[in-house]
Amino acid sequence: MIFTEDQFALKEAADRFAREVLLPGYQKRENQPFDRDLAREMGSLGFIGTDLPEELGGLGQTSITTGLVAEALAYGDFNMAALPVNVSLNAAVLLQHATKDIAEEWVPKMIAGEKLMAICLTEPRGGSDAARIELRARKRGGDYVLTGEKTSITFADSADIFLVFARTGSPEDGAKGVSAFFIPEGTPGIARLKFNDIGHRVVGRGSLFFEDVVIPETYRLGPEGTGFTQVMHGFDYSRALIALECIGAARASLDEAWAYSKDRQAFGRPIGQFQGVSFPLAEGESIIEAVRQLAYHTLQLREAGLPHTAEAAMCKWMGPKHAMEVIHSCLLTMGHYGYTFDLPHQQRMRDVMGLQIGDGTAGVMKQIIARQKIGRAAVPY
Amino acid sequence: MIFTEDQFALKEAADRFAREVLLPGYQKRENQPFDRDLAREMGSLGFIGTDLPEELGGLGQTSITTGLVAEALAYGDFNMAALPVNVSLNAAVLLQHATKDIAEEWVPKMIAGEKLMAICLTEPRGGSDAARIELRARKRGGDYVLTGEKTSITFADSADIFLVFARTGSPEDGAKGVSAFFIPEGTPGIARLKFNDIGHRVVGRGSLFFEDVVIPETYRLGPEGTGFTQVMHGFDYSRALIALECIGAARASLDEAWAYSKDRQAFGRPIGQFQGVSFPLAEGESIIEAVRQLAYHTLQLREAGLPHTAEAAMCKWMGPKHAMEVIHSCLLTMGHYGYTFDLPHQQRMRDVMGLQIGDGTAGVMKQIIARQKIGRAAVPY
Amino acid sequence: MIFTEDQFALKEAADRFAREVLLPGYQKRENQPFDRDLAREMGSLGFIGTDLPEELGGLGQTSITTGLVAEALAYGDFNMAALPVNVSLNAAVLLQHATKDIAEEWVPKMIAGEKLMAICLTEPRGGSDAARIELRARKRGGDYVLTGEKTSITFADSADIFLVFARTGSPEDGAKGVSAFFIPEGTPGIARLKFNDIGHRVVGRGSLFFEDVVIPETYRLGPEGTGFTQVMHGFDYSRALIALECIGAARASLDEAWAYSKDRQAFGRPIGQFQGVSFPLAEGESIIEAVRQLAYHTLQLREAGLPHTAEAAMCKWMGPKHAMEVIHSCLLTMGHYGYTFDLPHQQRMRDVMGLQIGDGTAGVMKQIIARQKIGRAAVPY
Amino acid sequence: MIFTEDQFALKEAADRFAREVLLPGYQKRENQPFDRDLAREMGSLGFIGTDLPEELGGLGQTSITTGLVAEALAYGDFNMAALPVNVSLNAAVLLQHATKDIAEEWVPKMIAGEKLMAICLTEPRGGSDAARIELRARKRGGDYVLTGEKTSITFADSADIFLVFARTGSPEDGAKGVSAFFIPEGTPGIARLKFNDIGHRVVGRGSLFFEDVVIPETYRLGPEGTGFTQVMHGFDYSRALIALECIGAARASLDEAWAYSKDRQAFGRPIGQFQGVSFPLAEGESIIEAVRQLAYHTLQLREAGLPHTAEAAMCKWMGPKHAMEVIHSCLLTMGHYGYTFDLPHQQRMRDVMGLQIGDGTAGVMKQIIARQKIGRAAVPY
Repeated sequence: MIFTEDQFALKEAADRFAREVLLPGYQKRENQPFDRDLAREMGSLGFIGTDLPEELGGLGQTSITTGLVAEALAYGDFNMAALPVNVSLNAAVLLQHATKDIAEEWVPKMIAGEKLMAICLTEPRGGSDAARIELRARKRGGDYVLTGEKTSITFADSADIFLVFARTGSPEDGAKGVSAFFIPEGTPGIARLKFNDIGHRVVGRGSLFFEDVVIPETYRLGPEGTGFTQVMHGFDYSRALIALECIGAARASLDEAWAYSKDRQAFGRPIGQFQGVSFPLAEGESIIEAVRQLAYHTLQLREAGLPHTAEAAMCKWMGPKHAMEVIHSCLLTMGHYGYTFDLPHQQRMRDVMGLQIGDGTAGVMKQIIARQKIGRAAVPY
Repeated sequence: MIFTEDQFALKEAADRFAREVLLPGYQKRENQPFDRDLAREMGSLGFIGTDLPEELGGLGQTSITTGLVAEALAYGDFNMAALPVNVSLNAAVLLQHATKDIAEEWVPKMIAGEKLMAICLTEPRGGSDAARIELRARKRGGDYVLTGEKTSITFADSADIFLVFARTGSPEDGAKGVSAFFIPEGTPGIARLKFNDIGHRVVGRGSLFFEDVVIPETYRLGPEGTGFTQVMHGFDYSRALIALECIGAARASLDEAWAYSKDRQAFGRPIGQFQGVSFPLAEGESIIEAVRQLAYHTLQLREAGLPHTAEAAMCKWMGPKHAMEVIHSCLLTMGHYGYTFDLPHQQRMRDVMGLQIGDGTAGVMKQIIARQKIGRAAVPY
Repeated sequence: MIFTEDQFALKEAADRFAREVLLPGYQKRENQPFDRDLAREMGSLGFIGTDLPEELGGLGQTSITTGLVAEALAYGDFNMAALPVNVSLNAAVLLQHATKDIAEEWVPKMIAGEKLMAICLTEPRGGSDAARIELRARKRGGDYVLTGEKTSITFADSADIFLVFARTGSPEDGAKGVSAFFIPEGTPGIARLKFNDIGHRVVGRGSLFFEDVVIPETYRLGPEGTGFTQVMHGFDYSRALIALECIGAARASLDEAWAYSKDRQAFGRPIGQFQGVSFPLAEGESIIEAVRQLAYHTLQLREAGLPHTAEAAMCKWMGPKHAMEVIHSCLLTMGHYGYTFDLPHQQRMRDVMGLQIGDGTAGVMKQIIARQKIGRAAVPY
Repeated sequence: MIFTEDQFALKEAADRFAREVLLPGYQKRENQPFDRDLAREMGSLGFIGTDLPEELGGLGQTSITTGLVAEALAYGDFNMAALPVNVSLNAAVLLQHATKDIAEEWVPKMIAGEKLMAICLTEPRGGSDAARIELRARKRGGDYVLTGEKTSITFADSADIFLVFARTGSPEDGAKGVSAFFIPEGTPGIARLKFNDIGHRVVGRGSLFFEDVVIPETYRLGPEGTGFTQVMHGFDYSRALIALECIGAARASLDEAWAYSKDRQAFGRPIGQFQGVSFPLAEGESIIEAVRQLAYHTLQLREAGLPHTAEAAMCKWMGPKHAMEVIHSCLLTMGHYGYTFDLPHQQRMRDVMGLQIGDGTAGVMKQIIARQKIGRAAVPY
C-alpha cells in the first residue's frame, strides 16, 4: 500500500527515532528492567496510541498508522516496538468494555508511556483455550475475589495494571462462563515470576499469581460471561501488527548485511558480487516485502470493516517465521563477525523467535486458515 | 489492496467468465490453434485493454484493473489470460512511439481481440541481451530491409503483427544501435517455427525468420537507436502482471484441492481433518496471498509514478515459483485422481513453469534486486 | 556404502545398458505398450531378480544389488526400472507363500522378463486400507470365486498374472479376514481399464474388474486370513527401492544440467560460473546423495535382519520428493531448451511424481515414522 | 552403514557417557573455561584418538569410529565433542609431518586429554585463503622467527600447543611459499584474544598474536613450502566429522521433542497426535538420518582410499544447516517451555550455528561440489 502524507511523516519520525535513539541501545537494554524513560519519550513523540482518540492523547489515526510505527520502531528495537502494539490493543478493550471512569483515567497514561497493562489470559493447564480457564472470580457482596494463576503473560514483570480473564460461571459453561476484570495498580494479593526466556526479555514474560485479590464489581468489563469475546476481536489486529514488528527487525538485519556485502572483500572483490551471497539476501528482501504488503492489506481490510481472520492468521505465522530465517541468513552473510554478541542479529533471532510461539503458534494459525476455507471439516481445533 | 467499485465489478465479471466459459475448455484448448472467437469474446466483454484509452476501445482504467482481470481470467485459463497482458503492454509501446496512424489503426483491433502483436526481441545468440542484437535493419531509400532471426517469441505462431528490434547501428553501439520497427500483417518475407513446448502451448512460443522484409521508414518507432529504452519501460509492468496470472492459476488449484479435502474420506473422516493435508494448503493460501498483495502493491507504485523495479523483479520470480509449488501440492492432495490428465493441475504446472523461464529467469530477477540494493557492487557474478 | 566387486560389475553393466539402450528410447516408449522385447533383454542380461535364487534364474545376490540395478536402470528409463523392482517384490511373495508348483512355474518366467505379475490390493473405497477390503472370495467346493474391483493397480494394463487380496472372512474381521490368491493368465472373468495418468504411463496403472473368477483352492497363498501380513513384509523393501529409482532419474537430469552449464554461454562465460546456476545443482547433488546413502543403508539393515521400517518410510517420501524438485531445478537450469518435449526432464518430473502418490503418500510415511518414535501417541491425526 | 561389534561397543559407552555425564553439565559449562578434568576423563575412557596408533595411546581403529564417538558425545555436549575431532585431525598432521620426537612427545598427551593443539591458519586479511598468508617466519641461524596475527582460531583460548602456517617464501609464491611450524607450550611471544561468540564458547575461538616467536628449525613440519598441502588433506576428514557432531546435537533435541509430544496434552490429547506437530519432527528425523548416512559413507570412502572431496563438502554444509533447522523446530515444538534458558535447544542452535560459518561456509562447500562436477568452468573460487 501507499501511505498518506500524514502516515509518511510519522513513519519518517519513527524511522529516525529507531535508528538514532533505539538501535544504539537495543542490545544494552536486553537484560535491564523495562526502560520507563524511553517509554515516556516514545509517548511524548506520539508513537503510542496512534489509532486512539485524540481527546485521550492519541493521534486519532488508523490501525495502518499503528502498524507503520510498530514496523519502524522494531527496526531499532524489537522489544520497545511491543509497547505501542500492546497499548493500541489493550486500550481498545478498555474503551469498549470498561467503565468510562476507568478508560478515561488509564488510557491517557498508557498512551503517554507511563503505565503498562498486561492481558492475563493463558493458564498453566489449558494454555490459551478460553473454554478451560480455571482462575476463579467469586462474587462477594459488591466485590469479586480472584484466585488463581496466569502464565506466559507479556509484561508480567513490569505491568502496572491488569486485565484478567476469570471464571465467573461453572466449568461446564466453557468460554461463556468467563468474564474480564480490570485490576489497577496497588491492588494487594498479586505476585509475579519472570521467566528466564531466551529472548524478548525486555517484555518480561512470566507468571502472575492472584491470591484473594478483591476488586469492586465496577471493575468487571461488560456483562458476566462476555469476557472472551471482548478480547477475541483484538487477536486479528495483533496478528497483523506482530508480523510488522518482525518485518521491521528483519529489514534492519537485511540493511546491515547488504552494507557488509558491499564492503567486505573476498577473493579480490566485494562479496556481494557472488550470487551465493547476494541471492539469499535478494530472496530475503522479496519474502519480507511480500509479507509486509500482506500485513498492511490485513489492516486495510480491518479499517474497511471487511473479514480478515484468515489474512491475520497468515501474517502471524509468516511474519515471525520468515523474519527468523532472514535474520539467520543475514547473520551467516556476515560470517564470523556476525556470529559475535557485538552484532544485533543474534538477539533479533532470539527476540523474533518468541513470536513464533507466543500469541498462537504457526500450527494454530494454519488451523484457523483451514477453518476459514472448509469450516468444520477442518477440525480438530 | 482494496478494490474500487468499478474494479470490483469488472473483477466479478471476469471471475464469472473464467469459471463458466474459460475453465471448462482450458484443457481442450491446449493443443489447438489460438481461439480467435474466444479472443473476440473477451474483447467484446471489455477484458482486453482495460488500461488503454476509451477512444481506442479500452476502458481507460489503470494497470491495477489490468492485473485484476489477468488474475481473474488465469483462474479459468492461464493461456488466454496472456492475451490482455500482451495487449496492454504492446499497445502502450505503439501509443507512445509509433505514428498516430499505426496506433489508431491497430490498437483498437488488439483491444477488440481481433489482432495479436508479437514483441520480437530475443535472438538465438545473446538471448535477451539487447546489446547483442544482430538482426539487421538496413536503410534502402525510404525503406528498411530486415534480415535475421528471432527466437522464443511469444505468440510466434499466431501473431498478426510484429514489433521487431533490429540493429540499425553498428555492433559496437550495443543497445544504442538498436531501433524498433512495426511490421503489419501481410508483409512478405516472414517464416514461423513453433516450438514443441511442454506448456503455455496456446501462446505458441517459437522462432521468426525475417528474410529481406521491406517496410517503409514510417514503421520505425521513434528516432533510430531508441528502440531498447522504448520496451524496457514495459518490463516492470509485465513482471507484476505475470505474477498475477500465476496467482490466478494457483488459486484455482487451491479451491479445487480444498473442495476435495472436504469431500474425500479416509480413515473415516474427511481428509481435510488431517493437518498433514490441510496445513500444506493453508501454507499455499498464505504465500499466494502475500505475493498477490506484493503484485498489486507494485502496480500501485507504478500508478503513483514511484520506483518499483525491485518490487517487479520480486513479483516475477516469486509468482511463478510459488504458483508452481502450490499447484504441485494441490495435485498431490488429490492423490491418484489429481495425477490424471482429467484434472487441470498437471497442465497448470506445465503452463506456469513456462514463466519461470520466459521473460527473465529467477536468477536475473534476484540480480536486479541486488543491484537495486548495492548497485555496481552486485555485478557481475 | 561401498559396493563389492560383484555388485560393482553388475552396476557397470546396468549403467551402460541404461545409457546406451534405455535412455535413447525413454521418451519414445512413453505412449506405447509395455515393451516385451526390452523386458526379455533385461532379463537375459541378469537385471531382473538379482536377489532371487539362482536355481530359478536369479543371481542369488542381495537386495542391495537389486537396489543398485534399479537405480542404474532408472537413469535411462524410470519406467523400465520398475520391472526388476516389481519382480523382486512379487516373486518373494510367491516363493514364501505360494505352492512350490506355482513358484517354480512362474518365478523363472518373471525373472526372464517374460511374465509380469500385478499385486492387486487397493480398492475404490478404502484405498490401501487392508482392513476395509471388500472384494469377495467365496468358497465353492474346492474352488474360490472372486468378485469385485481393484484400482490403482500397477501394470494393470500389461500384467499376465495376478496376486489378489480378497475377503474370505467377514467385514468385521478387518485385515484378518483377508487372504491372497494367485491368478494365472488366461483365467476368465477379468477386465482391465487403464488410467489416463500424467506419467509412469508405461507402467500402466489402472483398474481391474473381477467377475466370478474361479480358481482352485491351491491358488490361495498360505492359510486363510494371512494375506495381508504376507505382503506387508515387502513394503519396507519396496520403499527403499522406489527411492533408488527416483534417485537414478534425478542423477540423469543432474548430469545433463551440469553438462549444459559448462557449454552454455551467457554474458561471455559458461553459465556454470554463476553461483546462481551452480549452487542449486550442487544442492541437488547433495540431497540426492544423502537420500541415496539412506536408501542403501535401509537395504543393509534389511539384509542384516535389523528393523528398518522408519528408514524405509523416510526413503519413500524423500526419494520422490527430492528427485522431483531436483529434476525441476535441472529443467529450469536448461531454460527454454529444457522446457521442450525434446528433453527428458519433463517426462521424468511426471514419472517421478507418480511415486509421490503411489505406494503410500508422504503423509502416510511421516505417520509411520512418528509411530515408530512415540507409538500409539502418534495416532490418529 | 552397519557398525562392527567393536564400533558398537564404543558407541554404547560414548552414548552412556554423553547422557549421564555430559548432558547434565552441557549448559553449565557454556561460560566456563575449558574443563580439563572432563577432557582427561574422556581421554581415559578411550574417546579421544580412536583412530590413532595404539602405541601412542589411541585405539587403532578407523575414522568411522572417530565419527561415531563424535556423534555420540555431541548428543550430550556439542562443545566437548569437538575435542576428539580436534585431536584426531591435528595428531594426524604431527604424525605425518613433524619429527618423531615431537609426535611421540605430544600426541600421547593429546590423546590423554591433557594437551590441546590449535591449528592456526586463518588471518584477518584473506581469511582461509592460504595463498594470501602474511604471517612471516624468517630464518635466523638455526631458528625461525614468527611474527604476525592469526584469527578465528579454534581453542585460541585454551590451546597448549600450536600448529602455525607461516610464509617462508615471498608473497608471489602464493600457497607454495607457506610452511607449517609446531610451537610447544611455554614459548614466549604469544598473546591471545578470545572472541565474544554467541555459541561454541567452550571451544574459545579467538585471535593469536605472534611477536618474534623463536623456534628451532626442527619445529618446521616437512620441507619449506609444503605447509598447505599438509593440512589440506585433513579438511575432507573434518568436514564429515563436523556433520556428525551437528547430527548428534540434533538427535538430542529430536528425542527431547518427541518425548514432550507424547506427554504434553492439548485439546484433550497428546500433541504428538496432531500431524502439525509430529510431521515436522518426522521430517527432521528423516533429513538427519540421511545426512548421517552420507557422513558415514564419506568416512567409508576415506578408509577405502577413494575420492570423497565432493561428499565431504556435502556433509559440511548439510550437517550444520539441517541440524540448525531441526533443533529450531524442536524448540518450537516445546513452545514456551522450549523458549527458556532452562532447556538446551537454544544453546544447541547457537553452538551449531558456529559450524555453519567456521571451517568453510556453505557457499565455499557448494563451490567445491561444483568444481568436482565441471572443473574450471565452475570458477570463481
